[in-house]
Amino acid sequence: MISGGILNDLLTRIAEAGRSLTLGSQAQGGDALALCERLVSGKGEATGLAIAQQVFDAYAKLDAQEQLVFFRQLKDSFDVDAESLDRAMAAWRKQGPTSARALHFASEPRSQELIRRLNRAPGGTRALVDMRADLLGASREDADLKPLDTDFQHLLASWFNRGFLELRHIDWSTSAEVLEKIIAYEAVHEITGWDDLRRRVAAPDRRLYGFFHPALTDDPLIFVEVALTAEIPDAIAPILAEERVPLDPAKATTAAFYSISNCQKGLRNISFGNFLIKQVVEELRREFESLTTYVTLSPVPGLRQWAEQETRNAEGLLSGEQHSLVERLESYEEATASEEMLGLAALYLLEAKAPRGGAQDPVARFHLGNGARLQRINLAADLSPRGRANAWGVMVNYLYDLKDIEKNHEAYANDGSIACAPAVQRLVKSSKRG
Amino acid sequence: MISGGILNDLLTRIAEAGRSLTLGSQAQGGDALALCERLVSGKGEATGLAIAQQVFDAYAKLDAQEQLVFFRQLKDSFDVDAESLDRAMAAWRKQGPTSARALHFASEPRSQELIRRLNRAPGGTRALVDMRADLLGASREDADLKPLDTDFQHLLASWFNRGFLELRHIDWSTSAEVLEKIIAYEAVHEITGWDDLRRRVAAPDRRLYGFFHPALTDDPLIFVEVALTAEIPDAIAPILAEERVPLDPAKATTAAFYSISNCQKGLRNISFGNFLIKQVVEELRREFESLTTYVTLSPVPGLRQWAEQETRNAEGLLSGEQHSLVERLESYEEATASEEMLGLAALYLLEAKAPRGGAQDPVARFHLGNGARLQRINLAADLSPRGRANAWGVMVNYLYDLKDIEKNHEAYANDGSIACAPAVQRLVKSSKRG
Amino acid sequence: MISGGILNDLLTRIAEAGRSLTLGSQAQGGDALALCERLVSGKGEATGLAIAQQVFDAYAKLDAQEQLVFFRQLKDSFDVDAESLDRAMAAWRKQGPTSARALHFASEPRSQELIRRLNRAPGGTRALVDMRADLLGASREDADLKPLDTDFQHLLASWFNRGFLELRHIDWSTSAEVLEKIIAYEAVHEITGWDDLRRRVAAPDRRLYGFFHPALTDDPLIFVEVALTAEIPDAIAPILAEERVPLDPAKATTAAFYSISNCQKGLRNISFGNFLIKQVVEELRREFESLTTYVTLSPVPGLRQWAEQETRNAEGLLSGEQHSLVERLESYEEATASEEMLGLAALYLLEAKAPRGGAQDPVARFHLGNGARLQRINLAADLSPRGRANAWGVMVNYLYDLKDIEKNHEAYANDGSIACAPAVQRLVKSSKRG
Amino acid sequence: MISGGILNDLLTRIAEAGRSLTLGSQAQGGDALALCERLVSGKGEATGLAIAQQVFDAYAKLDAQEQLVFFRQLKDSFDVDAESLDRAMAAWRKQGPTSARALHFASEPRSQELIRRLNRAPGGTRALVDMRADLLGASREDADLKPLDTDFQHLLASWFNRGFLELRHIDWSTSAEVLEKIIAYEAVHEITGWDDLRRRVAAPDRRLYGFFHPALTDDPLIFVEVALTAEIPDAIAPILAEERVPLDPAKATTAAFYSISNCQKGLRNISFGNFLIKQVVEELRREFESLTTYVTLSPVPGLRQWAEQETRNAEGLLSGEQHSLVERLESYEEATASEEMLGLAALYLLEAKAPRGGAQDPVARFHLGNGARLQRINLAADLSPRGRANAWGVMVNYLYDLKDIEKNHEAYANDGSIACAPAVQRLVKSSKRG
Repeated sequence: MISGGILNDLLTRIAEAGRSLTLGSQAQGGDALALCERLVSGKGEATGLAIAQQVFDAYAKLDAQEQLVFFRQLKDSFDVDAESLDRAMAAWRKQGPTSARALHFASEPRSQELIRRLNRAPGGTRALVDMRADLLGASREDADLKPLDTDFQHLLASWFNRGFLELRHIDWSTSAEVLEKIIAYEAVHEITGWDDLRRRVAAPDRRLYGFFHPALTDDPLIFVEVALTAEIPDAIAPILAEERVPLDPAKATTAAFYSISNCQKGLRNISFGNFLIKQVVEELRREFESLTTYVTLSPVPGLRQWAEQETRNAEGLLSGEQHSLVERLESYEEATASEEMLGLAALYLLEAKAPRGGAQDPVARFHLGNGARLQRINLAADLSPRGRANAWGVMVNYLYDLKDIEKNHEAYANDGSIACAPAVQRLVKSSKRG
Repeated sequence: MISGGILNDLLTRIAEAGRSLTLGSQAQGGDALALCERLVSGKGEATGLAIAQQVFDAYAKLDAQEQLVFFRQLKDSFDVDAESLDRAMAAWRKQGPTSARALHFASEPRSQELIRRLNRAPGGTRALVDMRADLLGASREDADLKPLDTDFQHLLASWFNRGFLELRHIDWSTSAEVLEKIIAYEAVHEITGWDDLRRRVAAPDRRLYGFFHPALTDDPLIFVEVALTAEIPDAIAPILAEERVPLDPAKATTAAFYSISNCQKGLRNISFGNFLIKQVVEELRREFESLTTYVTLSPVPGLRQWAEQETRNAEGLLSGEQHSLVERLESYEEATASEEMLGLAALYLLEAKAPRGGAQDPVARFHLGNGARLQRINLAADLSPRGRANAWGVMVNYLYDLKDIEKNHEAYANDGSIACAPAVQRLVKSSKRG
Repeated sequence: MISGGILNDLLTRIAEAGRSLTLGSQAQGGDALALCERLVSGKGEATGLAIAQQVFDAYAKLDAQEQLVFFRQLKDSFDVDAESLDRAMAAWRKQGPTSARALHFASEPRSQELIRRLNRAPGGTRALVDMRADLLGASREDADLKPLDTDFQHLLASWFNRGFLELRHIDWSTSAEVLEKIIAYEAVHEITGWDDLRRRVAAPDRRLYGFFHPALTDDPLIFVEVALTAEIPDAIAPILAEERVPLDPAKATTAAFYSISNCQKGLRNISFGNFLIKQVVEELRREFESLTTYVTLSPVPGLRQWAEQETRNAEGLLSGEQHSLVERLESYEEATASEEMLGLAALYLLEAKAPRGGAQDPVARFHLGNGARLQRINLAADLSPRGRANAWGVMVNYLYDLKDIEKNHEAYANDGSIACAPAVQRLVKSSKRG
Repeated sequence: MISGGILNDLLTRIAEAGRSLTLGSQAQGGDALALCERLVSGKGEATGLAIAQQVFDAYAKLDAQEQLVFFRQLKDSFDVDAESLDRAMAAWRKQGPTSARALHFASEPRSQELIRRLNRAPGGTRALVDMRADLLGASREDADLKPLDTDFQHLLASWFNRGFLELRHIDWSTSAEVLEKIIAYEAVHEITGWDDLRRRVAAPDRRLYGFFHPALTDDPLIFVEVALTAEIPDAIAPILAEERVPLDPAKATTAAFYSISNCQKGLRNISFGNFLIKQVVEELRREFESLTTYVTLSPVPGLRQWAEQETRNAEGLLSGEQHSLVERLESYEEATASEEMLGLAALYLLEAKAPRGGAQDPVARFHLGNGARLQRINLAADLSPRGRANAWGVMVNYLYDLKDIEKNHEAYANDGSIACAPAVQRLVKSSKRG
C-alpha cells in the first residue's frame, strides 16, 4: 500500500494552486458551504480531492454554533433539486409506475452526492463519521436537522455494510494504538488501565473481538469481551477480578459475552452487534471443541427507573408487595439479594413494553431481537455504583442457541413473544399481582 | 484477520437448518427470487447472511436464459413500493418542498435494500460485481433491464468510492495470483507471458500501479503501466522490446503512461482512471526527483473508421487531398508514415465530435476530460495488426501538466475547447479543406 | 524493519572517507587481502562494516584465476596464529587436560574471525555463501584449499543451524521472486515453466515446502514437492501430467515426496533434508486427517553405472543371468519393464556399499540414514532421458513411518543394516548368484 | 511461516515414543546430562530435536543448586575429546604448522556440538540464552565454570553476529507484547508506566530503536532512546517531563541519545551498542534533513566512588581543593552545581584509567571506544537519587561526528588518547594539582 501522506502532498499542492478560486472573504461556515457547492457543481472535478480536503479543513475551524449554521445551510442548499424533481414528477404522472425508479433517482438530495465526493479525500470516511457525530449533537438542539442526518445515515449504513467489515481478535500482540482505543471505548465495565486490559485480552480464558472497517484502519467499530468459563456466570466481579486462577480453556464449556461496546458516535443507529455476536460464536466454536453454551452476562439498565415509576402508577403492573419492595429498596440496599427482586425483574423484562413495541429494556430488546432467549436473572451480580443505581445489582443471562435463534427472532418480531427459560416464566407468574 | 471460511461454515450450518423453509419445488430462477423476497422481507433477519449465500448459490446454477428471466422478475418484483410512494406523494402535495427528501427515500426501489443485504454475505461484493457483468450482457438483449442496471450501478459506484481504494505498486515481489490477473486483464498491449510481464514490472525503468478494493482483495480494478524514459516516446515497440538496455531511473526525465486497463466488467461506467493517473503522478514525482514530464503514449482507436466514413460524406471535414489519402491507404499501408497523415489525425482529434459533445475518440475524451493536453501525434507508432487496423499505426501523447489540468478540464467541460500543443494546432490549420 | 539500503548508504559514505587508507596500487586480489587484514587486525573497527563491504566489492571484481590466488593467500595468511598456539601448547604441556579448551580457542584460525566480521556487512551472509561456492570450485583444482573450505563450512553450518530455519508453504500466493527461484533450482524433475509450476503449487492435491533462512530472505535453501494421492505412486509421469483430475485432498491417504532439491551450492555438505521431511510430515498430518502413509518416489541415480561396472567384474555380485541382462539392456531399452530388473535393482540398493560404508546409491543413503525403509521398486517409473540413462527407468519408494524411523536409523548407523519391505527382501534372495 | 507449535507436536509424539530409552531413575541433573550425552553421541539423531527438547524440559526442573551441579558435570563431560586431541597433536608434531587448523578442529570441546544441537529445538536459542544467564550466575560462585561460559559465549557471539540483527523502530503501533518488554528492560532512566512509555515512543520528537534477532522474535536485544532537540541537552529532566510542548521534528538540529539498555542477561559481553548507534544515526540523518548533531546525554556512573577513593589517596590525582570539595559534598548536596565540580569530573573522565587501559568510567569507555568525543560536562543534569548517588548529578555529552569516529577510535585504541572538546581540555588543565 502506498501511503496517504503522498496523496496529501498532492492535495496540498493542487489546493495551493486553486486557492485563489475559493471565496476568501466569507465567514468560515460560508466558506465551507461555498466549497461544498463547488465540489458538487462539477466545476473543479479535476481537483475534486483537493476541494474535499479544503471542506474538511474549513469545517475543522468551526465552533459548535458555526457548525449548527453550517448544517442548516447544508440541509437547505443541498436539498432535492426542484427542477429535476418536477420533470420526474411529470413523467411519472404520464407513464405511471414504470418511471417510479426514475423518480427516486431524480429526487436524490444533492447532499448525497456531496457526501460521496467528500468521502474521496484521504481520511474522508473518518472525517464524515466525525462530522455526523457533530450533526447528531446539533440535531438534538434543532430537530429540523433530522432530514440531513438521514442523508448521512443512509450513506454510512451503505458503506459500513457488514460485507465490508473485518473481524479481528484483539490480544496482547495488538498494537498499543488499537489497545488504547479499547480502553477508551469500553462502555459497560470500565477498563481501569493497562493491567486491567491485559487481564481481559491476554489471559488464556479471555477473548476480545472487534469489527473494523478498511477505511478506519485501526479504529474499532464495536467490540465484545468474552470469558471462557465452566458454567454460566452469575456475577461480573469474579470475571474482572485482579487475582484469578485462569481456567484451562480446553476445559471451558461456556463462552460468556460480558461486555459489548459501540465505539463510533458517528455511526449511531447503524447496527453491527447482531453480526458480531454470531461470528464470534463461530470463531469460538471452531477453536474450542469443549464449548457447548453461548450466553451473555448483561446489565438491566432500565429496571430501577421503571420500577420506581410503576410504584407511582396505581394501575401499573406491580402488586402491593412489589410496591412496598421498591419503597423499601430506596432506603435499604442490602435487599438487593432479596428473592422478591427476581420476580420484579422478570416482570420488567417480560411485560414492560417500549412505546413502539418490543421489550422496554434496551439491552433486552437487542438480544431478544437477535434471537437470544432470556435464560436467567442473577441477584447481586453487579455491585458497582452503576449496577446498584440502575438495577439494584441485578444482571441477566441471554442464551444464544444457534438452533433456536431464527425461531426466537421470528416469534419476537411477529408478535413480540419473548423466548425465556421455564424458571423465568414461573417467576413472572408467581409475582403477578394476586 | 479471521478467515471468511469460518463464517462460511456458520452459514452452511444455519442454511441447512433453514432449508425446509425455502420453496423447494420451484424452478431455479423462481427459487432465487423467492429467496430474495425472504431476504428483503425482514423475515429471517437472524439468518440473513445464510439466505444471501443461498441466493448466490441458486443464481450460480442459472444459464443465460434463466438469468434473463431472473433479472426481469427482479426488476418487476423489487420495484418502488407503490403504497409507500403514494403516501409520500400525498405528503409532498400537502407540505411541498420540505418533504422532497422523504419522497426520495420513500421511492427507493426495493432492489437497493436487496443488493445491500446480498452484499453482507462473505464474498458478496465479488458475487454482485459478477452478477452485474451478467446483467450488462442481458441488458444488451433486453433494454427494459436498464433500470435494474441503474440500481446496481448506483450502489457499486457508492461502494467503490475512491476513498475506499488502495493504490498498490505491482512488481516482482507481488504474488503470482495477482500477477496472473494482470496478464489476463491487460487490454491495450497484450502481455504475452511471464517473461513479458517481468519486463514490464521488474525492470528498473518500468512501473505498474493498480487500484484495489478491500472487498476484492487480490483482484485489481484498474492498472496503469509506466515507462521511465529520457524523452517523450513516439512508438510503442521500443518500450515493449525484449532486448533493451534499461535506463537508469535516476536519469529519467519523463514518465510515459503507455497502457491503462479496466479489469472488472461488472464495474463498467464507474470511473477510476482519473484518480489513478493523478495519484501515480504523485508517487513517481516523489520517488524520482529528475522527472519533469508526465505524458501518455495512447492509441487512437477511432481514427480509421472515422476517416473512412468521412470519405463517404461529401459535406464532411476532409479535403480532396485527404479523401484520396484515405483511399490510397486502403491499398498502400506503407503510407502510414506519410506526413499528410498527421493532418488527418489532428483533424480527427480536434474537430470530430461525439453526439453528446466532447471529442469523438474515446481515449481522447478520457484524457482531455481529465485535463490533459494533446501534445503530439506520432506516425508509425503502433505497427501491430490492431494499431494498423484502427489508426494506420498512429499514436498520440497526452500531456499531464499539474499546473494546467484544472484550467484545461474546465475549458473542455464548459465549451469543449481542447488544450493542444501549438504544433498540433498548426497541423489542423494547414490540413483544413482549402 | 528498516531497509538495508539505508545502511548501504552509510557504508558508502564511510567507505569514501576511508578510501585513501586502502592500498590502491595493488592488484585486486592483493587489495582484497589487504582489506581482510585490516578488517581482522582490529584497526578500523569503527568502520568495520564499510571495510567488509569493500572486501566483497574487491572480491566481486576477481576472475576465476584471481579468485584461486586470493583463496590461497587467504588460507596462508589467515592460518592459526603461531605465537598464540605456542603459548597455549606450553600451558597445555604444563597443566594437562584442563587447558585443552584454551588450546582450542588459541588455535582458532584467523579466517574464522575474518568470516564472522565479513558477515556483519549488509548482505554479508549471501556474499559468503556465494564465495564458498567459488571456493568449492577452486578446491577441485587445488586440493590444498580444503582446510580453508573447512573454515567456511564450520561457520556456515553453525549459522544455518536448523533452529534458525523457517519452513514456508510455497503456493500461488507466493511472490514471483521466490517462485522464479523454485523453477531455477528444481534439480530432479525439471519445471518447464510457469504453467508447470502452477500445477505443482496451486493444485489442491499438490504441495511445495521450503526452508528459508532470515539472512537469505527470499531465497530457499532446500524444498520438497509433495503429491497427495490415493495410493503409493509407482511412476512420475502421472504426477507431472498436464491434464489431470486433481484428487480431493480430503480423500488422500498418501503423501508422496516426489522431488527434493538443494538450492545453494555454497551450502554443500550442510544438510537440511532430514529436518525438512520430518517437519513437512507433521504439517501434512495436521492438515489432512485422512493421511496414513508418507513415502517418497525417488530416483536411483547410480543403478546403471554400477551394474555396468559389475558386469566387468567376474568376482562381482551379479549372477550370469544378470550379466546377460545388463548386456542386453544396452541394446534393448524395452527391457526396462523386465521382471529381472527388479532383482538387479534390489541387489544394488541392498548390497552395493559405499567406500566409507552405507548404501552406495546417494539417494538411498540419504533416506535410509534418515530412518526410512526401502518399500518398493518400480519398473518403467521414470522414462525421461535421464531416468533411462541412469536407471533404465527404475524408481523407488522409501517409506517414512514415524514409529520406526529411530529404530531404522540406529540399525543403519550402527551396523549398516537396511530396513526394507519383505517383498524387496525376497527379490534379493531370489536374484543372488545361484 | 508455519507455526512452531506444529513442530512441538511432532516432538512430543517422538519424545513419547522414545521415553523408555531415557534413564528414568536418575536425579534430574543426571537425567539432563544423560540426555545431553545421547544428543551428542549421534545415537538418536533421527529424533534429535525431541531429545533437545527433553534436555530443556529436564533443565527447567532444576533448582539453583542442581543447576550448579549440572554445569560442573557439563564442563567435565563435554570437554575436549582426549583421544582425538592426542592424534591431532601427533600429526602436528610431525607435519608442523600446516596441520594447526586440524588441531583446532580436533580440539573442539564437545560442548560446542552439544550447544549447536540444543539450538535445533524450537525455541532453542531462547532457552540457551536463558541457560547462559543462569551459568553466568553460577560462575560467580564457582570460577571453574568460566571455560564452560566461554563455550556458550563463543557460539552465541557467532549466532548474534550483527549481520543477523534487524533494526526496528518501536512506536505506538508496536505490539503491547514488545512495548511491555521495553518498560521492563529500560535500565538507565526507569519508565514508570504506559503513559511514560507513550511519551518516549509516540511524541513526534522522540524515537526508540532496537535490535532484534530472528530467533528471539519479539524480544529486543538492546534499544536506544532518542530525543530530537534544538540544542545539545544539558539535563535529563526536561527530556522526560510529563508536560512538554513537543518540538516540530523538522526543526530539530540535534539527536540526543539519552538512554541505551541491554536486554538479555544471557548475552553479556556480546556487544551490539556500537552498531546500533551508528545505524540509528543513519536512520535519523535520512529521515530528518535538518539534523546536524548526534550526541549522547550519558551518566557518569563511577564519578563519586572514584572521587571518594582518591581523597583517601594522598598520592592521587586530586588537588587539595578538590579533596575538600569532595569532603564538603558529602554533607552539602547543593554544591552539585559548583563550578569546581566540572574540573573534578573532567579529571575523572580524562585521567582515571581502568586496570586494563582505557577510561575507568564504563560509559566513557563504551562511547570513546566507538569513536565518540567527550563534548561537554553538565552540572545538576540528573537529580534523581541514582544520579546524585553516583555522580552528584553530573552528566556528560559524547559527540558522534561521522567524519571523526574512525580517527578517534584508532587514537583511543592505539594509545588511549581521548578525543575531547577544547573546553573540556581546559577544565582539566585548570583543575590539575597546583
